[in-house]
Amino acid sequence: MDCVAVKYVAKKPKLRNPIFIEGLPGIGNVGKLAVEHIIEETNATKFADLYSKDFPPQVFINMDGTIKLVNNEFYYLKAKKKNQRDLVLLTGDYQGLSSHGQYDLAEKILDIIQELNVKEIFTLGGYGLGHEIKEPKVLCATTDKNLVAKMKKYGAVFKKNEPGGGIVGASGLILGLGKLRGMKGACFMGETPGYLVDPKSAKAVLKILMKMLNLDVNLSELEKKAKEIEYIAHQLKEMESASKEKTDELGYFG
Amino acid sequence: MDCVAVKYVAKKPKLRNPIFIEGLPGIGNVGKLAVEHIIEETNATKFADLYSKDFPPQVFINMDGTIKLVNNEFYYLKAKKKNQRDLVLLTGDYQGLSSHGQYDLAEKILDIIQELNVKEIFTLGGYGLGHEIKEPKVLCATTDKNLVAKMKKYGAVFKKNEPGGGIVGASGLILGLGKLRGMKGACFMGETPGYLVDPKSAKAVLKILMKMLNLDVNLSELEKKAKEIEYIAHQLKEMESASKEKTDELGYFG
Amino acid sequence: MDCVAVKYVAKKPKLRNPIFIEGLPGIGNVGKLAVEHIIEETNATKFADLYSKDFPPQVFINMDGTIKLVNNEFYYLKAKKKNQRDLVLLTGDYQGLSSHGQYDLAEKILDIIQELNVKEIFTLGGYGLGHEIKEPKVLCATTDKNLVAKMKKYGAVFKKNEPGGGIVGASGLILGLGKLRGMKGACFMGETPGYLVDPKSAKAVLKILMKMLNLDVNLSELEKKAKEIEYIAHQLKEMESASKEKTDELGYFG
Amino acid sequence: MDCVAVKYVAKKPKLRNPIFIEGLPGIGNVGKLAVEHIIEETNATKFADLYSKDFPPQVFINMDGTIKLVNNEFYYLKAKKKNQRDLVLLTGDYQGLSSHGQYDLAEKILDIIQELNVKEIFTLGGYGLGHEIKEPKVLCATTDKNLVAKMKKYGAVFKKNEPGGGIVGASGLILGLGKLRGMKGACFMGETPGYLVDPKSAKAVLKILMKMLNLDVNLSELEKKAKEIEYIAHQLKEMESASKEKTDELGYFG
Repeated sequence: MDCVAVKYVAKKPKLRNPIFIEGLPGIGNVGKLAVEHIIEETNATKFADLYSKDFPPQVFINMDGTIKLVNNEFYYLKAKKKNQRDLVLLTGDYQGLSSHGQYDLAEKILDIIQELNVKEIFTLGGYGLGHEIKEPKVLCATTDKNLVAKMKKYGAVFKKNEPGGGIVGASGLILGLGKLRGMKGACFMGETPGYLVDPKSAKAVLKILMKMLNLDVNLSELEKKAKEIEYIAHQLKEMESASKEKTDELGYFG
Repeated sequence: MDCVAVKYVAKKPKLRNPIFIEGLPGIGNVGKLAVEHIIEETNATKFADLYSKDFPPQVFINMDGTIKLVNNEFYYLKAKKKNQRDLVLLTGDYQGLSSHGQYDLAEKILDIIQELNVKEIFTLGGYGLGHEIKEPKVLCATTDKNLVAKMKKYGAVFKKNEPGGGIVGASGLILGLGKLRGMKGACFMGETPGYLVDPKSAKAVLKILMKMLNLDVNLSELEKKAKEIEYIAHQLKEMESASKEKTDELGYFG
Repeated sequence: MDCVAVKYVAKKPKLRNPIFIEGLPGIGNVGKLAVEHIIEETNATKFADLYSKDFPPQVFINMDGTIKLVNNEFYYLKAKKKNQRDLVLLTGDYQGLSSHGQYDLAEKILDIIQELNVKEIFTLGGYGLGHEIKEPKVLCATTDKNLVAKMKKYGAVFKKNEPGGGIVGASGLILGLGKLRGMKGACFMGETPGYLVDPKSAKAVLKILMKMLNLDVNLSELEKKAKEIEYIAHQLKEMESASKEKTDELGYFG
Repeated sequence: MDCVAVKYVAKKPKLRNPIFIEGLPGIGNVGKLAVEHIIEETNATKFADLYSKDFPPQVFINMDGTIKLVNNEFYYLKAKKKNQRDLVLLTGDYQGLSSHGQYDLAEKILDIIQELNVKEIFTLGGYGLGHEIKEPKVLCATTDKNLVAKMKKYGAVFKKNEPGGGIVGASGLILGLGKLRGMKGACFMGETPGYLVDPKSAKAVLKILMKMLNLDVNLSELEKKAKEIEYIAHQLKEMESASKEKTDELGYFG
């Protein structure tokens, strides 16, 4: 096995001018939630597994007692309407652990999608604010100046100097290395507190994506998950303030 | 020397449809204790040393004052009865230090056992619970659905979502990468507090393995070790509670 | 992409006996500030980008909403007067993250400048003192004994056993590996408190460099930045002493 | 430059059945002090520099203001009497930073000395006890059983299970990997508190080495250094107890 190895589990799909969408684990798992939701709702077809020596040496255990080596997974979805485009989707269990591994993975991913004639890339992630948000906005950054106006049209937001630290990880790197190969695209970052997985933020990202792709995806499952998380967040907060009150009562210092 | 190098110290054995059993250091050293016990009790034959640049740069000092470069070691054991199978056994001083090194080692191990016609893999490890256990169960995960029922028959236990974090390290990786090569097998994880080496857990794992392999191994040495550890654990606990009492007496705060 | 990859964004310049000047991020960002200032004031021409798998997997976001993969950048500046020399300039977003990556980058940088016939190297950095300085001196170390007197003439200072830890990072490594290739040169280290970016120290370094290169660079922008930083440092100090007073008043212990 | 690169600074020496002696930095710098002392006192000839990407990216600054890239250095010393042997000596600024780097360096060192017909290896190091010692003993471990008695004759000590953790780093690895190539030898470990550089321990190691090699080396310089360190250790101890008294006076708790 090379550092990164691809294993096709189905025939390589023949796609017409496909768009690539990446959603790997990250802050609030926003990107992963969004891409997984598309895959589940549209019944996209898995065609390849990606393994890397830079993933943890780990297998997960499936519900039926069998194991699954941690990986990234490629899916495709053929256009069903005239105004739609073929899609290649990527999600997975992990990003590369090291800087080196991140670059190796991104390059391999780009090799694979270039072979499938991808020329446009959209990467999805979260933008951690560290505080609660009523309505998460979706920040954006693009490979090209003329894409900025286009993305604004779909509802994406551009803020000067935000995110201040740029985009770290697969979402930034695939877009950045893709740009060096002449590919175009954008990164959508859903605002998120960043403490828990955030289906609400994923939904905000998906809404923009759906508009852009003329894709119709039922969001009710994601909304259900969002309510569950909201409930958990609420409970955590109550537990916290309860424990704080107790501490205050006891008059602890230091 | 490559990243991982094998050095045959005896002629490569000719084996008939052998089963591979791995037991490297890990939680409670359960896997290592189990495989070492088989090797000692059955007088298995060592045939190869495995060295890796991902092991610590270290030599151990033998009882006679000579040195031994840290390694992993392969043994084999030929079937003695009709209902038995030839075995290839692996144990060693260390697992790879890094994720990369773990993958390299697992791939090399698979290369070696594939050359010996191994098609079935059983990996042994511990499942750390963080608390004491009366009778350690042996959890299991398999490469194939139809192996689940078979393993249950031998006494292995399957719990939904356990271990929650999957299997990390050589036991998971060899099984997972082996599955990609079409090999079949299972991982047995003996429950263990995880604080000390745990011969009792190793014994529980061995009992299932012996049933499955129709192998008769005297467990008395392991039981003796288990009693020694039990005694040490008891003493540690007394020391701890004694020191706690003293602290309470002095009425320390903070 | 190799570990380090160069991408020429303009035709390779034809230069006559050029001098190489490096200023990458480091203590007080002294070297980076100095080289960036030369580039801006002289309108030097960018001709190559350097990418490395040992940089963080990160893109920055430009003012216009587009992304930029983190990199190092090469510029050149042709001599305008008889007593000047052609220059090759290097600055960038990061140094290599690991020891390995630092060596790989330094070797690649040397490959590139050797192709441009560079035989003299000057690396710029900061020397962190951990306390405030009225007038930062510029320490120096050279590849050759006979360069010591020459550098003193331009105002550089040589102190026995300083910096005690030698020079760590790109400034030291490029000079050290360059020396092995027969290149000559020196490292200029501007004294700096090391807490904040330090344009004052960068100015001190530039003054020596300008003398040596017969280069005339307007330093007013750098002086303006120095005043801004001085103001920030002053405010931080006041905030600190204010918070200290408050603590003292409350008479906290522990 | 490869991961490890050798640069010959003199013609490769032609040696008769030479013995290799390694003394790199480590606990108490015992090995380095010992080998450096031999080199200085015998005027051994430097013939090669070893550079590695696994050394820190660092240059040291010489007394005369010039730089020196961190490295390891090879010396040789031809036999002057009939009962002596030609020697190859290795010392240096650093050991490899990572496990991988340690293995790469050890392999390269073995390549170089094998080319010089070395068949016997002696590695020198310290054995940190964490407390003061009146007369440091010299522990030993060998590649071969029959060398144990021989080394005892020269005054080396063998203790069961000591050092308990084996030998970590270059001294262990060169011996261990050398053994795999059929080389013979031993590691001498001078007992040392391990807090400071320890010329006294180095002297103890040298005494055994001198006896074994029929080498006459003046130890007065090393004794002088030992006295200096003793004085420093004494002062540090006084400072410590003075500060302890003060604390006790103030009656601090916690």
